[in-house]
Amino acid sequence: MAHKRMAEFEDYLRMESVSTENRQIPETVAYVKGLIERTGGEVQVLDDLGGNPVIYGYFKASPQGNSERTLLFYNHYDVQPSDPLEEWRTEPFEPTVVDGVLYARGVSDNKANFMARLNALSLLNESGGLSCNVKFLLEGEEEIGSPNLGKYIEKYADLFKADACIWEAGSKDKYENYVVSAGMKGIAYFDLEVDTANIDIHSSMAAIIDNPAWRLIHALESMKNSKNEIVVDGFYDGIPPLSDKDKAAAAAQPFDAKQVAEQYGLTGKFITEGTAVSPTEALAFYPTMTVCGFSSGYTGPGIKTVLPRSAKAKLDCRLVPGQSPENVHESLRRHLDAHGYEDVRLTMIAAEGAQRTSVEDPFIEMVVQTAQAVYGDKNPVVVSPSMAGTGPSELFEKYLKLPIAGVGAGWAHSGAHAPNENVRLNDYYENIAHMVHLMEVFGR
Amino acid sequence: MAHKRMAEFEDYLRMESVSTENRQIPETVAYVKGLIERTGGEVQVLDDLGGNPVIYGYFKASPQGNSERTLLFYNHYDVQPSDPLEEWRTEPFEPTVVDGVLYARGVSDNKANFMARLNALSLLNESGGLSCNVKFLLEGEEEIGSPNLGKYIEKYADLFKADACIWEAGSKDKYENYVVSAGMKGIAYFDLEVDTANIDIHSSMAAIIDNPAWRLIHALESMKNSKNEIVVDGFYDGIPPLSDKDKAAAAAQPFDAKQVAEQYGLTGKFITEGTAVSPTEALAFYPTMTVCGFSSGYTGPGIKTVLPRSAKAKLDCRLVPGQSPENVHESLRRHLDAHGYEDVRLTMIAAEGAQRTSVEDPFIEMVVQTAQAVYGDKNPVVVSPSMAGTGPSELFEKYLKLPIAGVGAGWAHSGAHAPNENVRLNDYYENIAHMVHLMEVFGR
Repeated sequence: MAHKRMAEFEDYLRMESVSTENRQIPETVAYVKGLIERTGGEVQVLDDLGGNPVIYGYFKASPQGNSERTLLFYNHYDVQPSDPLEEWRTEPFEPTVVDGVLYARGVSDNKANFMARLNALSLLNESGGLSCNVKFLLEGEEEIGSPNLGKYIEKYADLFKADACIWEAGSKDKYENYVVSAGMKGIAYFDLEVDTANIDIHSSMAAIIDNPAWRLIHALESMKNSKNEIVVDGFYDGIPPLSDKDKAAAAAQPFDAKQVAEQYGLTGKFITEGTAVSPTEALAFYPTMTVCGFSSGYTGPGIKTVLPRSAKAKLDCRLVPGQSPENVHESLRRHLDAHGYEDVRLTMIAAEGAQRTSVEDPFIEMVVQTAQAVYGDKNPVVVSPSMAGTGPSELFEKYLKLPIAGVGAGWAHSGAHAPNENVRLNDYYENIAHMVHLMEVFGR
Repeated sequence: MAHKRMAEFEDYLRMESVSTENRQIPETVAYVKGLIERTGGEVQVLDDLGGNPVIYGYFKASPQGNSERTLLFYNHYDVQPSDPLEEWRTEPFEPTVVDGVLYARGVSDNKANFMARLNALSLLNESGGLSCNVKFLLEGEEEIGSPNLGKYIEKYADLFKADACIWEAGSKDKYENYVVSAGMKGIAYFDLEVDTANIDIHSSMAAIIDNPAWRLIHALESMKNSKNEIVVDGFYDGIPPLSDKDKAAAAAQPFDAKQVAEQYGLTGKFITEGTAVSPTEALAFYPTMTVCGFSSGYTGPGIKTVLPRSAKAKLDCRLVPGQSPENVHESLRRHLDAHGYEDVRLTMIAAEGAQRTSVEDPFIEMVVQTAQAVYGDKNPVVVSPSMAGTGPSELFEKYLKLPIAGVGAGWAHSGAHAPNENVRLNDYYENIAHMVHLMEVFGR
């Protein structure tokens, strides 16, 4: 039964809804609208605040159900670009099943999850009706950083009002555990630049003329010391202490140090080694400050005796709840000024807040228990207290004030954002079963 | 009289003796040999130790002269490449005079100086003969770092034996002072590299995986602090204290801070400001440690959330007498190892020792006095106790053990290594006059 809407699923995968290339957005919106309507839902296409439309979908609880309870599904109808095309073994926008695996751009991120949720609704409609209200929020700009989503959620907070939210994506981990994510880190991404001259200068002049590369090196090391400790006053302000349950959730997550080291070809130890923090705790709960790039002067082969005129760095701070991009920005600016680096320009070019639902929240426990009922011992369910990555979930928390859990039909090799993106059909069917069971329980 | 060999000078400038492109080297060697022979000298072309030939020239003191005294001229017959061609207003290898300025690739560096010395010898031959022996050493690899010169000087130390040496080049400074250089800094130029992984990694993993950019930032800042102090044990070992005369020579050099700041568009203060060291003292007498380049990760526009796999830097240390590239290399390696940076690879890719003749040396005083007699008040003579730049003069000091002074026919805008390289004909004539007078006095 679960696969009866495969034709529609495949048509949806054929929509080339690449937001960064502005491809087939209106067609995809129309198609999604039809999908929801054919499932028996109401639809509103919201486009009054700019950007690609935000789609609202609504399914009312059956008369026997609980009309006081509303579950919100967040999805996005846009996908990543498909390049590098030459690395695809199938056509990115022609869904192809090989050995039980469905390949297509956007299938794991996140069209399969949306279709699984619709399929679950179809099944519930056929077997006695919905036990709760269900809403959808589908946006079309997730892959370009959700620049307009906040405005829509704020304005339409009443429309999207719900008691809990299931996030757009999720995967089994590399140990085949089904993962329930309870949060995401935030991000504050900065360009740092310092100029000391108009032109590159012969390096013999370094005896008297200052060097922007040295200045930026010293500015950066003043912010994070050689023990990997971030030493910017105010950076950690507002972060609440971890609960024992949070720590236990981190400790319960599998982590195979040897496997991770091999995967990336690491030459050294993990930076958590010798500290009181475990790798899974650090990934979930600790902010980071990462030099993503540094460039200055001559970097080709051989010798060029140049005193550079400028130096640039890119700095990525992953944030945790309690921090805000704005506060982090201010703390970095204050730090630079206080340490004599007024001339180092600091520009925040990306900002998203962190969001974390407590692992003790009843909704997280419900998602876990309903998953355990479906996945059993074959795929143990683990709770990721916070993903190491970033998404717009803080906007949902801020304006809708609800708990959020991330689950989905992916697996460790789904390759979101990569060539040969795929979902195993069995994972897809199982995810439908989980969504059915979750909606049944949610309305009780 | 001084310009009677202009036709030969121009033919010499037509030789496209670009060592880095291996152009017209044999033709140029043959031409130089002919020039020396037509001036009445003996020639040996030395090519038994590899590389472009080293030319030995010899002019014996006249019977009335002092056969006990020998002056060595160092020159090189190779030149820089002429690109960027589109910035030349004349043909680089077609010497062209415009308003009393002679334009050609290699004219200031250093074909005019060689021709001035030959012209001076012609004039002395015509007017009573040489008062001392004169030798020439011309190499053909100066513009590629003189990689073979040391072997030739060591093997042929007896052949090139002399009492003093006039260096290949020199210029009036931007204040129109005629400059006598008494030394050059050395150089130790390093590639630093650190790898932490096989592949670039998503920056969310920075919570547990080390970052090569941070490692290199911390390794570098451990070597030179934010006060621009080099704090590597052993780096300064062997440097003798400055004499009062050295300090006085530095103090006597003109330095227009405002002009230098404008020339380069400097945004900050000189790093000597607030220290006990003056700019001219720092340029002449203090070693440097310069980041010439730094690259890691993503450095394009916008956001890429990457944890880089590797980081590279280029580090240029200018050295002073007492230091050696090898000792500096060892001190840096020891420092990195002692500070936990065993994984930072350090490769010395250029090495030349420093050389400095005391400003109190009688030869320097003789060069200054003979210059003063020629240039008078119009172009005051200043002694540069050491140029901020680098050349192979340490090899001459090591194997020939003689004082070295640098003078030449250039001016502040001669543009050695740049398009539209030029020499003012008046400077050329004056330099010939200086060489005549110096050789007269040297034999006394």
